[in-house]
Amino acid sequence: MTNPDNKPLIKVGIIGATGYAGAELTRLIAHHPMAEIAALGSKSFKDMPLSDVYPSYLSFIDVPCVDNAEVIDKSDVVFACLPHGLSQQTAQECVAKNKIFIDLGADFRLKSEKEYEEWYGGGFLDANLHETAVYGLPELFRESISDARLIANPGCYPTSAALGLYPALKRGLCETDGIIVDSKSGVTGAGREPSMVNTFCEVNEGFAPYKVAAHRHTPEIEQSLSAAAGKNIKITFVPHLLPVNRGIVSTMYVRLKLGVAESNVREAYEAFYKDEPFVRLLQAGKTANLKNVRGTNVCDISLHMDRRTSTLVVVSCLDNMVKGAAGQAVQNMNIACGIDETSGLKLIPAAF
Amino acid sequence: MTNPDNKPLIKVGIIGATGYAGAELTRLIAHHPMAEIAALGSKSFKDMPLSDVYPSYLSFIDVPCVDNAEVIDKSDVVFACLPHGLSQQTAQECVAKNKIFIDLGADFRLKSEKEYEEWYGGGFLDANLHETAVYGLPELFRESISDARLIANPGCYPTSAALGLYPALKRGLCETDGIIVDSKSGVTGAGREPSMVNTFCEVNEGFAPYKVAAHRHTPEIEQSLSAAAGKNIKITFVPHLLPVNRGIVSTMYVRLKLGVAESNVREAYEAFYKDEPFVRLLQAGKTANLKNVRGTNVCDISLHMDRRTSTLVVVSCLDNMVKGAAGQAVQNMNIACGIDETSGLKLIPAAF
Amino acid sequence: MTNPDNKPLIKVGIIGATGYAGAELTRLIAHHPMAEIAALGSKSFKDMPLSDVYPSYLSFIDVPCVDNAEVIDKSDVVFACLPHGLSQQTAQECVAKNKIFIDLGADFRLKSEKEYEEWYGGGFLDANLHETAVYGLPELFRESISDARLIANPGCYPTSAALGLYPALKRGLCETDGIIVDSKSGVTGAGREPSMVNTFCEVNEGFAPYKVAAHRHTPEIEQSLSAAAGKNIKITFVPHLLPVNRGIVSTMYVRLKLGVAESNVREAYEAFYKDEPFVRLLQAGKTANLKNVRGTNVCDISLHMDRRTSTLVVVSCLDNMVKGAAGQAVQNMNIACGIDETSGLKLIPAAF
Amino acid sequence: MTNPDNKPLIKVGIIGATGYAGAELTRLIAHHPMAEIAALGSKSFKDMPLSDVYPSYLSFIDVPCVDNAEVIDKSDVVFACLPHGLSQQTAQECVAKNKIFIDLGADFRLKSEKEYEEWYGGGFLDANLHETAVYGLPELFRESISDARLIANPGCYPTSAALGLYPALKRGLCETDGIIVDSKSGVTGAGREPSMVNTFCEVNEGFAPYKVAAHRHTPEIEQSLSAAAGKNIKITFVPHLLPVNRGIVSTMYVRLKLGVAESNVREAYEAFYKDEPFVRLLQAGKTANLKNVRGTNVCDISLHMDRRTSTLVVVSCLDNMVKGAAGQAVQNMNIACGIDETSGLKLIPAAF
Repeated sequence: MTNPDNKPLIKVGIIGATGYAGAELTRLIAHHPMAEIAALGSKSFKDMPLSDVYPSYLSFIDVPCVDNAEVIDKSDVVFACLPHGLSQQTAQECVAKNKIFIDLGADFRLKSEKEYEEWYGGGFLDANLHETAVYGLPELFRESISDARLIANPGCYPTSAALGLYPALKRGLCETDGIIVDSKSGVTGAGREPSMVNTFCEVNEGFAPYKVAAHRHTPEIEQSLSAAAGKNIKITFVPHLLPVNRGIVSTMYVRLKLGVAESNVREAYEAFYKDEPFVRLLQAGKTANLKNVRGTNVCDISLHMDRRTSTLVVVSCLDNMVKGAAGQAVQNMNIACGIDETSGLKLIPAAF
Repeated sequence: MTNPDNKPLIKVGIIGATGYAGAELTRLIAHHPMAEIAALGSKSFKDMPLSDVYPSYLSFIDVPCVDNAEVIDKSDVVFACLPHGLSQQTAQECVAKNKIFIDLGADFRLKSEKEYEEWYGGGFLDANLHETAVYGLPELFRESISDARLIANPGCYPTSAALGLYPALKRGLCETDGIIVDSKSGVTGAGREPSMVNTFCEVNEGFAPYKVAAHRHTPEIEQSLSAAAGKNIKITFVPHLLPVNRGIVSTMYVRLKLGVAESNVREAYEAFYKDEPFVRLLQAGKTANLKNVRGTNVCDISLHMDRRTSTLVVVSCLDNMVKGAAGQAVQNMNIACGIDETSGLKLIPAAF
Repeated sequence: MTNPDNKPLIKVGIIGATGYAGAELTRLIAHHPMAEIAALGSKSFKDMPLSDVYPSYLSFIDVPCVDNAEVIDKSDVVFACLPHGLSQQTAQECVAKNKIFIDLGADFRLKSEKEYEEWYGGGFLDANLHETAVYGLPELFRESISDARLIANPGCYPTSAALGLYPALKRGLCETDGIIVDSKSGVTGAGREPSMVNTFCEVNEGFAPYKVAAHRHTPEIEQSLSAAAGKNIKITFVPHLLPVNRGIVSTMYVRLKLGVAESNVREAYEAFYKDEPFVRLLQAGKTANLKNVRGTNVCDISLHMDRRTSTLVVVSCLDNMVKGAAGQAVQNMNIACGIDETSGLKLIPAAF
Repeated sequence: MTNPDNKPLIKVGIIGATGYAGAELTRLIAHHPMAEIAALGSKSFKDMPLSDVYPSYLSFIDVPCVDNAEVIDKSDVVFACLPHGLSQQTAQECVAKNKIFIDLGADFRLKSEKEYEEWYGGGFLDANLHETAVYGLPELFRESISDARLIANPGCYPTSAALGLYPALKRGLCETDGIIVDSKSGVTGAGREPSMVNTFCEVNEGFAPYKVAAHRHTPEIEQSLSAAAGKNIKITFVPHLLPVNRGIVSTMYVRLKLGVAESNVREAYEAFYKDEPFVRLLQAGKTANLKNVRGTNVCDISLHMDRRTSTLVVVSCLDNMVKGAAGQAVQNMNIACGIDETSGLKLIPAAF
């Protein structure tokens, strides 16, 4: 990949590079025409080349992992792929050193410290810092991202839910209570660390919900939908574990307001997404399928009307590791750095 | 397997034995201590041993397929595993000849001819015959089955939905509008005939809904739920295709009536299912999982409360080919023949 | 399941009941008409019902795990499902107490202490005890099993290889050097303990050999083949990990001796296996497939001739957890206890 | 992707674009910085956009399919993805019109018409034309490809086998008889057309060889190995169907000549592949795995020594749709067109 304008390449550092999101992000940056990997950070695999952890990267990404301080020093943009609670201090440091900090974890996603405490069990280290954090869902909040130095990259489920429901709520087409988000995620969502939850024989040929109506992504979804509706919304959110590696499908149910026709809904979505490079609103009669978005930053949305009950069913599909994590993080970097938003992300989904 | 009382074995005929439901039924009958295969019917594979179609049956079920007339003549109980529309004439003939007829297809499931026409596109051949048909969901309608000669074996999705929601509706604990049934089925549900829908590379690593709010099982689910509620109910039903061979998970959402506590719900379900051999109501804190019911007649149900929105989430899991088809058909035969209801069905689900 | 002759049920104890082999064995015994579970042993899950570990067993096998001493006391037959090195002392104790001891581990499989040391790294605790141990592969060594008190249940790969090659070697139809055993196993073979090796995303959509020409089952395979040939044989054995839960396929390559015709080979196999209840020798033109033996004690064998190179290709398929572990252990118990060898094992493989 | 030198883009036509190989090739060309899709040919889907056949391509490759004449007219390079027997006439026409013709089918792979007749059942339409055909395996025959106008793109199995065994045979390190090639392929290898062979429930949780010692790729493998050895070689080749979408693993067994050390073998492979961009020779102790090459043009090779039997085990992994088909075809185009051989193929394999 070449850099069309011979601009200096953006120097990218990735903290937590050896987890699934970090590894995918590393691959995307390695393909990016206007960015380069400055340093990869890992505690568990320090001094080991990333290709020792992921042999698929052999001869492509053989750079050894270093400690976080080195990552920060060498980078213009620092991505953190860390469990929640561990990003706040690093964010402070990066912002102080005038880096762009993009957090793939949950620490800066919720505006409300109270909700963060309730769902994640810790507080805000520095409330002022949180004030400056921008929620990096470009299709909804692009403008604020372009000036941001601290970007909270959205969760995978919240991205799929928000993209799927935002236009209906923004336009006031549907009721704001009784919203159901029934989501299904691939196993990469459970992380790389071996556990009974992600063991092959436990997952394969099985299927079940988990954390029913108790998943930490619930308030994050509600935050975006409330922003759309202009009022506080509570939803019912149930995630399930799918026996596939990648991807999320959210099937969402909302009651239409009296008098709202199917065409009103379609027009609202078409208007909202017509210029979006990464959202494909499918034609009437088509149904979104996880297999059509794997490995790419695309989110497919299909709209279905249950006329018998005046219920709108929205199906939203994305790759939890790309549009739901690493790809969206690159999209945010592109916006914040003022380069083409699709740079490094023009991947066509494989047909099979 | 031996027959404890030395009763004469029930002679069983299976029409449409070479489809997935027929093949599974044949296997269950071959294991049944009080029944035996009298004849297997197939047009496409006439004169071929069933083990030529399914090599797993080699040396166990090598009986060659014959035509339907021979199946009926040789049997006390005739099962039909046919596409809808093809069972009605055979049912007439069997009833006239004093056989018990158990239809695994859809022809006799709906009480309303109007709904049958609307969803299946044909009429009732003989309305009087339909009057005598019993809907064979034993946990709900056991009594009527014991006298029946003509049993409509329920669909796979309707079994999972009805078992999951019946107690809440019967006891009047929840609202009857806004009910969502989000179901996920394994690929055997799509039948054995090769098509783009069930091709490995199309299904594997993919996931999507299909026939959104338009699946033929919708009125059948509504019929059972309406019976529970004592009033007409309309639901929103969305099936999905899971990349697994077997099983159905239905995640269902109902709003609780004001003042109904979680304990009321649990007590209602416990009372309803306490003596049922094939329904396992899981303890609070546990979640039903498809992998725990594969290959058996068990239906697992877990109850979850979303207190933030007063929504009850019911998860119901069964094997679409067993409790959702062949196993339930055997259960119906057992009841109709006056033998132990669990006979031939005491299979412990494999752990992996 | 009922016991036809009203004999007292065999009291069965299982040490290491919560691993995959132990769990499968427990299920088989729970189905067995002439045996019953006396006690289940587990250190890690002491006092927990087995159905807490494997929720599929709920309401079927809710017996709590106890310590090994209690298992031994309560049982006529003790099965041990332990990592190698841990069975020898227990075996001593059981034999001293006049129990039948069936070891699903590797401790008693190899006759040669030298080989055991070389491949497993420990010695024989009691050489006299090892003298009394019988290698429990019924199709080859049935007679010696019927008197045994200490039975070494064969490994999964060695069972598939020995059943596949024994007749050709016993009849002297093939060369004894240059034998290749290329085996592929499902993930249950890697055990239940979560590790990077059995994580869903590492295994799914992947495939690779492991321990190439260095797997501990090598000397065990050679021991059986050497017994067949009447001379020491060395083979090349390469196992692979298949992205399926269960099953082993061994594809084996041997050079035919000059003048040996395809018909000679087929006759030898037919003669050898004609009365075996658990070996299905497929007709010419058919190919053994893992999916036809899952969940059962059956071993399917197909024979293929490469006339261009005078190479016989033998394909042998079995379920690694049944004929390759728990099922064969039950078969050995049946023989040693003098009851019908197929008792509790008459399971027809599912068609899908 | 941008074209660094502002050369005119190569105009590419693809006949048979809607099969799996054609679809993958289309995707690679759509990503190629120095080529563009001029036209896509399909009989079955004429006038339909490719994205109607493969919804993953929506908004990326919406070009409608046209007939073959139009494809040829509009293109500098014509790729044919057709069943064997259908390419010869098109090849003639393209060569006459001075196009470069790259055949992904089998028509021009075998030099010997006799072998083609024996294995494929037809003859050579134009023997002179066959004389000009070059076998497009760049790592072995790069030089001849650079001048070619008619390139036979190798089969998937033959690519994996030839890359894995060529150095050992070329250097005379191993015996030339008794070579075993045990290969395992993903289901895309069976093509897109639905049939009982590629149905989900038949393939999933199953595994088996097929066409044992009778697969048409046998003579093609032998042709390359014979070229390496300088003498006619016969091998035993057994392919298997793996329950994964993509990829081939070949496990190959050759006897080393007396006195050949492991280090000799490794040096030979290192020398042979040291400058190859798409072959990764793994370090001693590592094992090639299908999951590390998916979606890319990389072939991973690992070498293993069975010292007990002086057998060299070579494991060769590639993506059957990329290095085994579409990717290698692009590599051939790049060479024949005199551009950077890796152009459009610098894809890093995904980690999961």
